Amino acid sequence: MTHPFRDADGDKLREECGIFGAINATDASAATALGLHALQHRGQEAAGIVSWDGREFFVRRGLGHVAENFSSSEAIAELPGHMAAGHVRYSTTGGSGLRNVQPLYAELASGGFAVAHNGNISNAMTLRADLVAKGSIFQSTSDTEVIIHLVATSRYPTIADRLVDALRLVEGAYALIVMTPEGMIACRDPLGIRPLVMGRMGDAVLFASETVAFDVVGAEVIREVEPGELVLVDFSGEIRSVRPFGSPPARPCIFEHVYFSRPDSVFAGRSVYEARKAIGTQLAIESPCDADLVVPVPDSGVPAALGFAQQSGIPFELGIIRSHYVGRTFIQPGDGARHSSVKRKHNANRSLVEGRRIVLIDDSIVRGTTSLKIVEMMREAGAAEVHFRVASPPTAHSCFYGVDTPERSKLLAARMELEAMRQFIKADSLAFVSIDGLYRAVGREGRSASCPQFCDACFTGDYPTSLTDLAEAQQKTAELPFADPKAA
Amino acid sequence: MTHPFRDADGDKLREECGIFGAINATDASAATALGLHALQHRGQEAAGIVSWDGREFFVRRGLGHVAENFSSSEAIAELPGHMAAGHVRYSTTGGSGLRNVQPLYAELASGGFAVAHNGNISNAMTLRADLVAKGSIFQSTSDTEVIIHLVATSRYPTIADRLVDALRLVEGAYALIVMTPEGMIACRDPLGIRPLVMGRMGDAVLFASETVAFDVVGAEVIREVEPGELVLVDFSGEIRSVRPFGSPPARPCIFEHVYFSRPDSVFAGRSVYEARKAIGTQLAIESPCDADLVVPVPDSGVPAALGFAQQSGIPFELGIIRSHYVGRTFIQPGDGARHSSVKRKHNANRSLVEGRRIVLIDDSIVRGTTSLKIVEMMREAGAAEVHFRVASPPTAHSCFYGVDTPERSKLLAARMELEAMRQFIKADSLAFVSIDGLYRAVGREGRSASCPQFCDACFTGDYPTSLTDLAEAQQKTAELPFADPKAA
Amino acid sequence: MTHPFRDADGDKLREECGIFGAINATDASAATALGLHALQHRGQEAAGIVSWDGREFFVRRGLGHVAENFSSSEAIAELPGHMAAGHVRYSTTGGSGLRNVQPLYAELASGGFAVAHNGNISNAMTLRADLVAKGSIFQSTSDTEVIIHLVATSRYPTIADRLVDALRLVEGAYALIVMTPEGMIACRDPLGIRPLVMGRMGDAVLFASETVAFDVVGAEVIREVEPGELVLVDFSGEIRSVRPFGSPPARPCIFEHVYFSRPDSVFAGRSVYEARKAIGTQLAIESPCDADLVVPVPDSGVPAALGFAQQSGIPFELGIIRSHYVGRTFIQPGDGARHSSVKRKHNANRSLVEGRRIVLIDDSIVRGTTSLKIVEMMREAGAAEVHFRVASPPTAHSCFYGVDTPERSKLLAARMELEAMRQFIKADSLAFVSIDGLYRAVGREGRSASCPQFCDACFTGDYPTSLTDLAEAQQKTAELPFADPKAA
Amino acid sequence: MTHPFRDADGDKLREECGIFGAINATDASAATALGLHALQHRGQEAAGIVSWDGREFFVRRGLGHVAENFSSSEAIAELPGHMAAGHVRYSTTGGSGLRNVQPLYAELASGGFAVAHNGNISNAMTLRADLVAKGSIFQSTSDTEVIIHLVATSRYPTIADRLVDALRLVEGAYALIVMTPEGMIACRDPLGIRPLVMGRMGDAVLFASETVAFDVVGAEVIREVEPGELVLVDFSGEIRSVRPFGSPPARPCIFEHVYFSRPDSVFAGRSVYEARKAIGTQLAIESPCDADLVVPVPDSGVPAALGFAQQSGIPFELGIIRSHYVGRTFIQPGDGARHSSVKRKHNANRSLVEGRRIVLIDDSIVRGTTSLKIVEMMREAGAAEVHFRVASPPTAHSCFYGVDTPERSKLLAARMELEAMRQFIKADSLAFVSIDGLYRAVGREGRSASCPQFCDACFTGDYPTSLTDLAEAQQKTAELPFADPKAA
Repeated sequence: MTHPFRDADGDKLREECGIFGAINATDASAATALGLHALQHRGQEAAGIVSWDGREFFVRRGLGHVAENFSSSEAIAELPGHMAAGHVRYSTTGGSGLRNVQPLYAELASGGFAVAHNGNISNAMTLRADLVAKGSIFQSTSDTEVIIHLVATSRYPTIADRLVDALRLVEGAYALIVMTPEGMIACRDPLGIRPLVMGRMGDAVLFASETVAFDVVGAEVIREVEPGELVLVDFSGEIRSVRPFGSPPARPCIFEHVYFSRPDSVFAGRSVYEARKAIGTQLAIESPCDADLVVPVPDSGVPAALGFAQQSGIPFELGIIRSHYVGRTFIQPGDGARHSSVKRKHNANRSLVEGRRIVLIDDSIVRGTTSLKIVEMMREAGAAEVHFRVASPPTAHSCFYGVDTPERSKLLAARMELEAMRQFIKADSLAFVSIDGLYRAVGREGRSASCPQFCDACFTGDYPTSLTDLAEAQQKTAELPFADPKAA
Repeated sequence: MTHPFRDADGDKLREECGIFGAINATDASAATALGLHALQHRGQEAAGIVSWDGREFFVRRGLGHVAENFSSSEAIAELPGHMAAGHVRYSTTGGSGLRNVQPLYAELASGGFAVAHNGNISNAMTLRADLVAKGSIFQSTSDTEVIIHLVATSRYPTIADRLVDALRLVEGAYALIVMTPEGMIACRDPLGIRPLVMGRMGDAVLFASETVAFDVVGAEVIREVEPGELVLVDFSGEIRSVRPFGSPPARPCIFEHVYFSRPDSVFAGRSVYEARKAIGTQLAIESPCDADLVVPVPDSGVPAALGFAQQSGIPFELGIIRSHYVGRTFIQPGDGARHSSVKRKHNANRSLVEGRRIVLIDDSIVRGTTSLKIVEMMREAGAAEVHFRVASPPTAHSCFYGVDTPERSKLLAARMELEAMRQFIKADSLAFVSIDGLYRAVGREGRSASCPQFCDACFTGDYPTSLTDLAEAQQKTAELPFADPKAA
Repeated sequence: MTHPFRDADGDKLREECGIFGAINATDASAATALGLHALQHRGQEAAGIVSWDGREFFVRRGLGHVAENFSSSEAIAELPGHMAAGHVRYSTTGGSGLRNVQPLYAELASGGFAVAHNGNISNAMTLRADLVAKGSIFQSTSDTEVIIHLVATSRYPTIADRLVDALRLVEGAYALIVMTPEGMIACRDPLGIRPLVMGRMGDAVLFASETVAFDVVGAEVIREVEPGELVLVDFSGEIRSVRPFGSPPARPCIFEHVYFSRPDSVFAGRSVYEARKAIGTQLAIESPCDADLVVPVPDSGVPAALGFAQQSGIPFELGIIRSHYVGRTFIQPGDGARHSSVKRKHNANRSLVEGRRIVLIDDSIVRGTTSLKIVEMMREAGAAEVHFRVASPPTAHSCFYGVDTPERSKLLAARMELEAMRQFIKADSLAFVSIDGLYRAVGREGRSASCPQFCDACFTGDYPTSLTDLAEAQQKTAELPFADPKAA
Repeated sequence: MTHPFRDADGDKLREECGIFGAINATDASAATALGLHALQHRGQEAAGIVSWDGREFFVRRGLGHVAENFSSSEAIAELPGHMAAGHVRYSTTGGSGLRNVQPLYAELASGGFAVAHNGNISNAMTLRADLVAKGSIFQSTSDTEVIIHLVATSRYPTIADRLVDALRLVEGAYALIVMTPEGMIACRDPLGIRPLVMGRMGDAVLFASETVAFDVVGAEVIREVEPGELVLVDFSGEIRSVRPFGSPPARPCIFEHVYFSRPDSVFAGRSVYEARKAIGTQLAIESPCDADLVVPVPDSGVPAALGFAQQSGIPFELGIIRSHYVGRTFIQPGDGARHSSVKRKHNANRSLVEGRRIVLIDDSIVRGTTSLKIVEMMREAGAAEVHFRVASPPTAHSCFYGVDTPERSKLLAARMELEAMRQFIKADSLAFVSIDGLYRAVGREGRSASCPQFCDACFTGDYPTSLTDLAEAQQKTAELPFADPKAA
């Protein structure tokens, strides 16, 4: 079953991973399973947990949801010990894809080494070619495995030094949880593009992609792992912090606020629910609308719709009902069924909508195909007018930091201007929140052009790192008209 | 995966079935699969479809969701023909339970006979014993099979007459869709306790438990099948209506409005969403509350919460975030995790709730265990006050008409008075909507005591039919203190 | 995996069933599982066991071998009690075929009723039509179910009388093991066409299709159940014998000696191994041959080949090696692979065969296709001459008593005379044992034409019962040139 | 299902692998599947095939038999191309064992590299530790992977040179089939301990562990790959032979003749069937016996029993009938069942055995437990005397060259002298063929003590290579009383 938040038509960006780790925990793998379950929205296709019981590592990975693989007592009993880390992942294809399911694990000369990674290494292909030429044999197609081979072949004496040695060669976005026989290491790339937070539950130290994982296991949040920081925790409970990469200004991913994180998480110092409501408020101020009902596209549009409704005074109503049972494509009956792929997920609440002027609120527009179907569904249900308000700026550029984006030529905002987009989705009006409005909603005073406070490359095309693999690929092929980044 | 609307702790009533049928349809089984998918909330444990291609019947049944069993083109190709009917079911246990998955099918002397049944026959045990004594051999433990054997052994010449002959012996609640080589028969018990609507899609005539199934397949609603009516449709398209049981006043199940039906369905002439909002409005009038936020228990409490918020002027906010990935019980980690079976499904939106006075709105209270956990979760998140408002009267009696109710001794409202209930769930205040308020919200002028307009036995203990099997069982055993109905 | 004794090309007759029962046994279902395992050669496609623990019946059935379904302690624990009966079956098709897997079980007014049946009821279609017309509903397409419905609708007071009442209406071949809450009933049709033996293990009474099942469980053989006899065993250990059908002369199936039974069984008073060796001896006397080596077609031809070799003085050698891993058809590689479907099972022992004159011994010829391939394989391996000797008379007629025979038009001996057969299989010479030789080998003084001592209809076309269903079918269709029996 | 030839009680030595390769073949993977099927007796637990289509390698591996994994056209279609190699393997445990299923495959700097290996590298642990220290990451626990990493890290320019470079470091027994984008390389260790033959089918060149694989695919045998030889075949069809290791005298495994190879294979220049018959002849000469019947322990004792019978003049009879349906352990019924684990596989042919003096012929005795059960079974069936003759010398030493032997302390012949063995198995007499007799039977003039013509370490303890891993392990632990080799 695919993500019920999301759109089977591919009209959402997809976060690729969530990670969780626990050390000095009585039931480390049980806590990890529960924590991953709370992060399930970040990746539904596969899940894995590695544990260490003081003598041995134990690995269990499976396709499907965390609950399918890790809710039984048998599964947890196979993962004994006081240290464990896990991973949920968006995309793997086919059975052999199990090789790519994380955490990855290897036996190094220093002992076992497991790593769970959220992000994307933008020079992975280049590093991999070098390693293979020297005799390294890769097991997976995952960029994460590059890190393991770099550690394995590093000449430094300690694991921590080998890991730093490896990360110096790596470019891109990463939040990592590493397990060795000496303890756990959590780290984040120098710009902190991907999220990672640190928590505590009794004597246990925990790490997770989002704070909601701590809520669910009953732990408290300590702080974020800082950009460029390595946090090392050993079995005596000692916690050390290392910052080998200096202190470049942070650039966390702003789309965590727009869509990726759960609304009950706190990200970059701000409640995600409140950030989303504030975006809705901002939208109502920037692009008001004369209408009878504010209708969210469920479920991700709900907080922004509440903000829009409270700001505008227009009533918030469930004009679209979402089915809880989505996922597969059904064979269509021939007698007049229309738009039913949308209707399986979303059905107009006809008695409410009929004859009314509607403002639809959605979090983002990617390809635009679902937006079009929803506008049409509203009109078929008798809506007098359909206005569309989007709680993010136009998504016009691909992400190379671990988010699965359609190729640029399929992004609606890369293909056309605002009015053309409005015509494409057949709305009576269309507006996006401004980039400065978005920054204000998430608690800043607008975007700093010289030194932006977030990574917002999907909106602006301003990529904060070099993109070596992409550049090499572009040298080999004729540049595609929509290749990102335009000016690279 | 269990019903994400519902509570794994058993704190909701569970509808036992949904049914759908299509005749003279180009792709009857595809339409049926899609229609059943829209009725998935009425039963998640098993699904089945029977089709007829003019010469043969084809049967396919499986445990699990409709999408797991009927979304592939292979599955649909195995169900050819222009007539099909299907069924989703709540409870079956174990693999052998497949015998009980409907539609049931039998080869009679007149040819094949398939039936999909929503409801419960309250003299099934008595009828079954008679049939077995005469040599009938039952394949299942389903009460529905009694109807088939009564038809098989009836001496009337036509199938329609045999079916009427059989139904004259039957007591209780039923909505049936029957398929024979001559066409489709849809019928409803004389009181119309269980729902059944009729629709049209081109030349095809459709029947379904709820109107939302017609929306999803792209069909239009014609009308309800009337209480006590048999609608016969043949392959020439002729539609006949027969009413062999006279015209007792109707008593449709009022809980369809409270919880069972999807909010985008129309039931007994009224939009379910609007009925629920009206219950919330009525609650705010009957039992107002001084608070900062109206918070729905998601998702079923949302419409009533909107009604309450609009009536009271208190802002509606998502103070509880529901996970989309629920279902299984996880092993609990030992370090301080508390209440996490609730937290896996529902997590407090702490930054919103902290320091505020909250009104929680839920659709009903069954055992009360989940209500308690949710109140505690709000307090742990820092709520200053927690008031509980319930969008139905106290559920104090078991249902014998096809709804899975806990035994009466486990119903909170059968065990204690209002103030004791409030203390049990640890709320600062507790109120239920009144029975008359409920009737007004669903469009009547209060409950008619002499001739109630709905079946509301779960609230009032006023059962509209005799309950032969129950009476016989009670003669055999000492009467249990909470056995229903008390006065029988 | 199909029967490794047998030929995937369909060139053997296939026994359809084996049955086993145990009453007053400490571990009745464990003994039944082991006994069925010893009868596995009689049916490989499905297996089932029903047990009774004094209060309830327990049923477990599965596709595949006994070992796959009944070797685990969990499986046996689900079948508690001191009485159990089981069945192995040759042919079921598809998953839904599980309905036809025996023992069949029904709840009658008198309580549970289970039956395991080996044989075929030759008026089952006619009886079934009558029962359905009166309101009986069939669950399976098995002829066995007719017996259950006849028992269910019989008006006699006791189960034993009802069973006799039912069997009086039944025509054909049957060995039955019946379980009721009162005990076990074993019976055999009046001619004793299908085998059934009775054994003892401590206090337990056992029934089985062959004596080898008693060897394997460690029990001793008491005697055969007699033709037309019902043996009733109750839980006090009392054994009663009833013979309601008088005493027609017995006609047991002679093909049990030729092929069906295991060589270590004793059938109709004679060791099967010795009978087969004696057939080989008889063949060597009737149709001697000048050759260098006697080569059995493994494994079923081995005993007859030993008899032939000992009689003729020609050395017995394994000129054909059989693989233990057969069953599936492989995709054939394109480069010159020939006859490899045979070679997968049977490979010439080239260094032995080359330049030699070979006498091949096989138990029977059905279609002749495998015989042809084996002769060709011998020639390719360099055999100087290939003579074929068959340890049964020509198989020229279909069986209607529970053995799966190809339709008559596909039987080689129904299509052509001896010389044509020889040319078809490309042998240098071909001979079958004579029908009188066969009778002598199994211990009689030749076949009694007036009153044959065995059923040998597959060789002679002399069917010992009427064949009502076949006669009715032939009235409806033009008579097929090869329909059996010719003169009917 | 385990090997029907073999003994679930562990009383046979188990060959660990069979390999097959095809290059320049129209349907290389179909031929490989069929060839592996013919080698199934060498390993039943897992199978794998890798193919190359000129651009890509394709891999498919599975637990279970070849037929379960590679008989479908879908499976073969996933393995396109004109070059393929495959492997069957005896022992893997659990699902994760799939990592160890061969052929192993890796992406090296030179392109893909696949290897199928039969044998055992006796310094694998030592080499592995060196490789890991330099940064190599192992995917499996297979000794075969050592070869791949040695190739990956070799500094020689061509794949052939890198492979020779790797093999120079390797000690032990190996027959390898290697695939690279340039073609196929087959090679055998310098002593030729494990078998490998070369064949031709049209333009295709084939390699296999035994000649029977060529019979089954319809190919002809060319010759054995010589000890220490590398045969390189490219896509133009050119065949080159390289002998980088000089010419030490060959030492092929003599147990191939005793038990491992199929009787229809030719090994080391001699028909295996004839070798086994000759061992039986030799036994009858060395250790004659006054008896009524020669009875083979089926199926592996049959050829030697025929030799013994022909030499002695005592009739050969099937006194033991083997079931074709073995493998699992059944729950034992409580009522007097004895020895049924043996009886499930082997049942005495009582009417033959009763009152007779029996000579049992088996190929070898490992633990002796099954021999004891079979002698007891003969006595229970009424045998007057039971003499045991073994068609190999006493098996007193473990194998370190790829054969799964019980630890030495469990080998009957390592624990006791001849008379004690006789008493243990309760036979009236016991004799083994002499070592010189065995050599004569396989075509030599007795064993050359100075330079034995075969590896016979399991009989003599004379290991032809050093055993580095074993020696290092023995330095670490106190020497076990039965550790092999005693004097090392």
